[in-house]
Amino acid sequence: MTDKPISRFPVPALADLPDDIRTRILAVQEKSGFVPNVFLALAHRPAEFRAFFAYHDALMEKESGLSKAEREMIVVATSGANECQYCVVAHGAILRIRAKNPLIADQVAVNYRKADITPRQKAMLDFALKVALEAQRIGEADFEALRSHGFGDEDIWDIGAVASFFALSNRMANLTSMRPNDEFYLLGRVQK
Amino acid sequence: MTDKPISRFPVPALADLPDDIRTRILAVQEKSGFVPNVFLALAHRPAEFRAFFAYHDALMEKESGLSKAEREMIVVATSGANECQYCVVAHGAILRIRAKNPLIADQVAVNYRKADITPRQKAMLDFALKVALEAQRIGEADFEALRSHGFGDEDIWDIGAVASFFALSNRMANLTSMRPNDEFYLLGRVQK
Amino acid sequence: MTDKPISRFPVPALADLPDDIRTRILAVQEKSGFVPNVFLALAHRPAEFRAFFAYHDALMEKESGLSKAEREMIVVATSGANECQYCVVAHGAILRIRAKNPLIADQVAVNYRKADITPRQKAMLDFALKVALEAQRIGEADFEALRSHGFGDEDIWDIGAVASFFALSNRMANLTSMRPNDEFYLLGRVQK
Amino acid sequence: MTDKPISRFPVPALADLPDDIRTRILAVQEKSGFVPNVFLALAHRPAEFRAFFAYHDALMEKESGLSKAEREMIVVATSGANECQYCVVAHGAILRIRAKNPLIADQVAVNYRKADITPRQKAMLDFALKVALEAQRIGEADFEALRSHGFGDEDIWDIGAVASFFALSNRMANLTSMRPNDEFYLLGRVQK
Amino acid sequence: MTDKPISRFPVPALADLPDDIRTRILAVQEKSGFVPNVFLALAHRPAEFRAFFAYHDALMEKESGLSKAEREMIVVATSGANECQYCVVAHGAILRIRAKNPLIADQVAVNYRKADITPRQKAMLDFALKVALEAQRIGEADFEALRSHGFGDEDIWDIGAVASFFALSNRMANLTSMRPNDEFYLLGRVQK
Amino acid sequence: MTDKPISRFPVPALADLPDDIRTRILAVQEKSGFVPNVFLALAHRPAEFRAFFAYHDALMEKESGLSKAEREMIVVATSGANECQYCVVAHGAILRIRAKNPLIADQVAVNYRKADITPRQKAMLDFALKVALEAQRIGEADFEALRSHGFGDEDIWDIGAVASFFALSNRMANLTSMRPNDEFYLLGRVQK
Repeated sequence: MTDKPISRFPVPALADLPDDIRTRILAVQEKSGFVPNVFLALAHRPAEFRAFFAYHDALMEKESGLSKAEREMIVVATSGANECQYCVVAHGAILRIRAKNPLIADQVAVNYRKADITPRQKAMLDFALKVALEAQRIGEADFEALRSHGFGDEDIWDIGAVASFFALSNRMANLTSMRPNDEFYLLGRVQK
Repeated sequence: MTDKPISRFPVPALADLPDDIRTRILAVQEKSGFVPNVFLALAHRPAEFRAFFAYHDALMEKESGLSKAEREMIVVATSGANECQYCVVAHGAILRIRAKNPLIADQVAVNYRKADITPRQKAMLDFALKVALEAQRIGEADFEALRSHGFGDEDIWDIGAVASFFALSNRMANLTSMRPNDEFYLLGRVQK
Repeated sequence: MTDKPISRFPVPALADLPDDIRTRILAVQEKSGFVPNVFLALAHRPAEFRAFFAYHDALMEKESGLSKAEREMIVVATSGANECQYCVVAHGAILRIRAKNPLIADQVAVNYRKADITPRQKAMLDFALKVALEAQRIGEADFEALRSHGFGDEDIWDIGAVASFFALSNRMANLTSMRPNDEFYLLGRVQK
Repeated sequence: MTDKPISRFPVPALADLPDDIRTRILAVQEKSGFVPNVFLALAHRPAEFRAFFAYHDALMEKESGLSKAEREMIVVATSGANECQYCVVAHGAILRIRAKNPLIADQVAVNYRKADITPRQKAMLDFALKVALEAQRIGEADFEALRSHGFGDEDIWDIGAVASFFALSNRMANLTSMRPNDEFYLLGRVQK
Repeated sequence: MTDKPISRFPVPALADLPDDIRTRILAVQEKSGFVPNVFLALAHRPAEFRAFFAYHDALMEKESGLSKAEREMIVVATSGANECQYCVVAHGAILRIRAKNPLIADQVAVNYRKADITPRQKAMLDFALKVALEAQRIGEADFEALRSHGFGDEDIWDIGAVASFFALSNRMANLTSMRPNDEFYLLGRVQK
Repeated sequence: MTDKPISRFPVPALADLPDDIRTRILAVQEKSGFVPNVFLALAHRPAEFRAFFAYHDALMEKESGLSKAEREMIVVATSGANECQYCVVAHGAILRIRAKNPLIADQVAVNYRKADITPRQKAMLDFALKVALEAQRIGEADFEALRSHGFGDEDIWDIGAVASFFALSNRMANLTSMRPNDEFYLLGRVQK
């Protein structure tokens, strides 16, 4: 536990939040055992909070040709490239849990080219990184490379959209100096 | 008018859309005289569409210490840096209209350092570009620079959040090869 | 019209210029209806002015395997990459006029990969951008790519030379903070 | 435990190694409980192995104005910038142990600017990153910045030399695709 | 001496050149003892040749607040940054001769920050490199830095214009794979 | 000869050095006719000195599938990319001598793509530069490219290890502002 600030900006008390936001946060706390700081830091702006999590859920919780672990790989790899401490630490934990693999998050965060992933997943991350870092250069050849690994166009939208959403998320975390909860660092590291 | 595709991905017919999305699109058409292609391209994914425009409106339509024209400057400058054709052309039009200035959008898109804007606005765009291109390096000195121009912390969140949201938006436009409507190119160029 | 300075450096009065330079400028004014600021800003140094425009005309006015519109595409695309406000705005106008296309200049300036141009023209701009940004890496494979689109070696010299000349021109415009004339912004946007 | 290859190159059996190298490796195994893969991967070239570890020890084991934890911070921060999986994972473990801080390594690896370190340590890492990424730009002002935090010239040599040595080490690890031992990932994460 | 090609493009015979160009080349040969390859390679295009050398002479041969050696320093430093073999080798020779210093050219080509030059010359080269590599960021602070070293505005134009002209020249040399004459390598290295 | 400092840090007198280091330095002086400054500058730290030269000799003096001249090409090309004045000047001299070619060092230092070397040597330098500048991206395709030119895996280790060792060396030289001896500039330039 720490008493370091979790955001450069004011962080509202749970009691002061609109009902829908407080309800969502309490549900997360119930499920996870703690409130990830992103909920508290973004609650400073309720309208933006609602849109942010609606977007997040539309991409990360839905059915998709990508497994949930694969979507978290995209988050961790692009957040590593963007040097976003909150997203690497928090989504690294989620990735370890979803992939049931205690090593994968650190590997993907530092250099996904050398991670224990499949060639198909490497192609997925090649594309995601290109969206994250030089989307203006995405062209037909990049789509073809993904199709040759069996990705359909809806999968490609998913890859690109997750990378795009975390382009936003990484920047908000760096803008606010959002601090990852201490709990995330160890989650999923000890296999049971 | 053109018959070029407006997206690499399927574009739904208005008649096939959920009611709320069709209603929103018809309202925009009523107001603008045409349907900006971003509405049609993103309607391919209704849940993402709703979150995208909720986020957009939360940032771009609300009261703020930044004028609406200033927020559009941020969009145009960061979209120029990200080489996003849709956003530069479409938001360039909106910027011309909101600033009542037919020259400003092209100036800001190419090199805001030489645009006809105030030193305060240049500081705003320096910060926005840093969020767009290297948010990981944002630090206390960047906040101080904005404060010295009279920006408060809520204004700084606004600057950073607009740059962050269009980091997402630019990537989606480049991913989908979103085509700006022909109508945008001339809007706001002839002062009445 | 504006009374903003057109250069950081002194701008000579027409009456004070050497005859040949004044004559050239008056001829341009006669033809265009106004004097593009590049003529006035560079006239501060008559010997450099003469060499600059001799070079310009040798490349841009001569017969070539590239159409005049194609040469202007090279100017606009490389000037966009170099963030040269004067050249994007002024040559954007010329490109619209020469291509008889009101949309093309903004498209090429922001991201030529998504512009309404032919694959041959995209290959031309790929090469031009490589000359503009990393000429040291130009090699045989780049020549082969152009030849596969039907360009001959004289055409390749033309592409490279136009990109090289505007490497000079963009830097002089950014050095002098050369201001584009207000007239350029609207030229060629309304088809007759 | 894993049976993935630990190097692209041949890895010698302990029994085949020169005595001095085998002795050193057995001593490490005795102390750590396992043999870090860097010892096995580099033992492919005994003469280079000896020089590598002599250099390592000369920098990392000696008395210095920098604590051992601080020297490991330099390793982790520069290895993160160089995307070296082996060094981030292995030296991240050592940093956690030496700093008695289970969070510090992930923070420093992703973005040291937001880590729980002192301003003096941030200045140290600013300098180390500059040596790692653009040593050609190191100048008197960089030395002055360190001196203003109380670093003496011998300390500055140490900072620069550690960053320089791991410039070598990171490249050898990426060249050989050196795999971090599974044991490193959890070391120092659970405080006792 | 070598029989390697001096350009990717056709190189005209002296006898086939227009009189004015042949005369100029013979004069250079008379003075230098050999014909620098840039004259032969560019003579492939007589109109461009005339403009190129007129521009060159207008900047490099005239009276200026910068000595001729200082102007050659700008050429060598910016050509080094642009990895232009012809210009570094040929103008390195001229710099050695004009500065009467056999070491200066190699120092400036590799890293001018560590060359045996004055602080005023370092400021001059800082500005020249900024024009060469990121002219779009040149601003008032850069002008002030030069003024604080005693440079007047005409000197600043000279610095920027030489850097701009060699931005063109470096690109033409890399485009044509222009080969430096063997004679240049040793010129000015042995002091008499 | 010059009296400029050869390092930012203290330089020991020969008489004050440990015997083994003094002996090594005197042997070099005997052979070369002067003491290269790298020996004096690094002797400030005897333990690091010993490891540095042991590493150097293990790579540069041993039998290898690469000739000694080829290994010096790697040094000069990567040191040029790292803007390391000491290494370009000193190893440029060694390269000229070992290759018996007075032109090769300047060519390789500025732009090896245009140097008088074989396609096999260009492939070697492509790989070496990738290790020097972006080792994290080295992958199977890079190994294949070298194998197609006849390099075996031990040769590839050599290429990568030389590039890695000079990543260290270049940074130490830039950190210490190590000054190349005047003698190096002319060595090997006059063929006998």
